[in-house]
Amino acid sequence: TEEMAAQKVNVLITGANRGLGLEMVSQMVKGSVAVSKLIACCRDPDGPGAEALQVLAKQHPDVISVVRLDTSDLSSIKECTQQAGALVGSEGLNLLVNNAGIMINTTLLDTTCEDMQKIFNTNVLGPMNMIKEFLPFLRAAAKASKISGMSTRKAAVICISSLLGSVEGTRQTYEYFSVLPYRVSKCALNMLTVCAAAELRKEEILFSLLHPGWVRTDMGGEKASIDAPESVQRMLDVMASMTEEQNGAFLDYHGQTVAW
Amino acid sequence: TEEMAAQKVNVLITGANRGLGLEMVSQMVKGSVAVSKLIACCRDPDGPGAEALQVLAKQHPDVISVVRLDTSDLSSIKECTQQAGALVGSEGLNLLVNNAGIMINTTLLDTTCEDMQKIFNTNVLGPMNMIKEFLPFLRAAAKASKISGMSTRKAAVICISSLLGSVEGTRQTYEYFSVLPYRVSKCALNMLTVCAAAELRKEEILFSLLHPGWVRTDMGGEKASIDAPESVQRMLDVMASMTEEQNGAFLDYHGQTVAW
Repeated sequence: TEEMAAQKVNVLITGANRGLGLEMVSQMVKGSVAVSKLIACCRDPDGPGAEALQVLAKQHPDVISVVRLDTSDLSSIKECTQQAGALVGSEGLNLLVNNAGIMINTTLLDTTCEDMQKIFNTNVLGPMNMIKEFLPFLRAAAKASKISGMSTRKAAVICISSLLGSVEGTRQTYEYFSVLPYRVSKCALNMLTVCAAAELRKEEILFSLLHPGWVRTDMGGEKASIDAPESVQRMLDVMASMTEEQNGAFLDYHGQTVAW
Repeated sequence: TEEMAAQKVNVLITGANRGLGLEMVSQMVKGSVAVSKLIACCRDPDGPGAEALQVLAKQHPDVISVVRLDTSDLSSIKECTQQAGALVGSEGLNLLVNNAGIMINTTLLDTTCEDMQKIFNTNVLGPMNMIKEFLPFLRAAAKASKISGMSTRKAAVICISSLLGSVEGTRQTYEYFSVLPYRVSKCALNMLTVCAAAELRKEEILFSLLHPGWVRTDMGGEKASIDAPESVQRMLDVMASMTEEQNGAFLDYHGQTVAW
């Protein structure tokens, strides 16, 4: 019905070809979220690393569009906005999930300038440029929505952060997870997201940070404590329950607040 | 006497030609800290912006050495270590004050990639490279010192951060201080410093972050609440009282813990 259709949301997910991103596409399209257009972005849609995503996209051709995107490259982001704009039209983009990210697991003594610049470009500037370039679509969605207040079904940006970006936690856990560039990048992402939340609060665009848990993915490794389906299911539940109270919040996959 | 001489410390301060850095050189050399060698670094020692520092250096030629240093340039840091090494010798460097920093006061909507990369290079990579390159001198000081535990008179790195780098505080203050690149850079510096504190704890090198207050300097502006002499006097008191309990801490100029 038209009322049902009006409740459907347009979503964009970065890093959607594997790990948490792929799992999020899979669960969303299988009905846990009523999605109109799901724009699944990855660096190389035609490469071997995107085969599973392409299979999923062929099963749901009216919903999923696989779009090329390198979030560390502003011109690639600008090209992506052209394609995304054509797909979402005047409804705008209801939900942007900044999931793409890289890990560099070096200690202070091992870390080079190049390591820091590379991870900063992908994990901090990437989300910043995504937010800035997709802002017109998020604004359109906020204005078009009949939902009052803030919601991930209205207009929202979810940034996938990490408990390793918690300064408070670092004092206890650095010995076990001595990944300085990753920690610095996620901490910077946290600050960026909180600034965005404050700056765009009046436009009713929700910004929130999620810690997905320590997940068995290529990044998390085999020793991690949960698998991707569990992490994503819980994150989608947390996202669905978000209101303006969670604007600028940092939550784990159980919905618990993480210390800065 | 020899015992007095043994208690004197070797200090290096970045951004020492104006503002807080210049005031810190001034107060240290006037006796608030027993200094053997005070290496006062700035980008252009021969330029008009360093005249006050050069006057001070001429008044205390046995203590102050003005050394050229651009902390955003690794080769400049390496050149600086050569000169500093010749000055401090086997005593090493007891105290490194990472004071040099820049402000970029743009909102999310105004901020460019270039803004972010520039402030990240100076405010985050600068301190990181200073720590890494001066580590041999800090280690030498830690080993040569007869002080047990941690102390800024033994071996320490103090990074000048800002309350604006507090994520917790950002939610309340962003409206009044909408300086996204500066906030992100100082937050990243905080995480970097806490990682360094954890990584080098066993070598008894103390790492701590200080918020100098909102100070009437070129950066702070005329509306700021305290002047540089008060800020520096209080910061020197806080630094003098630091022990291993303050390793990885973020303190304001009154010695109070700042929320991350």
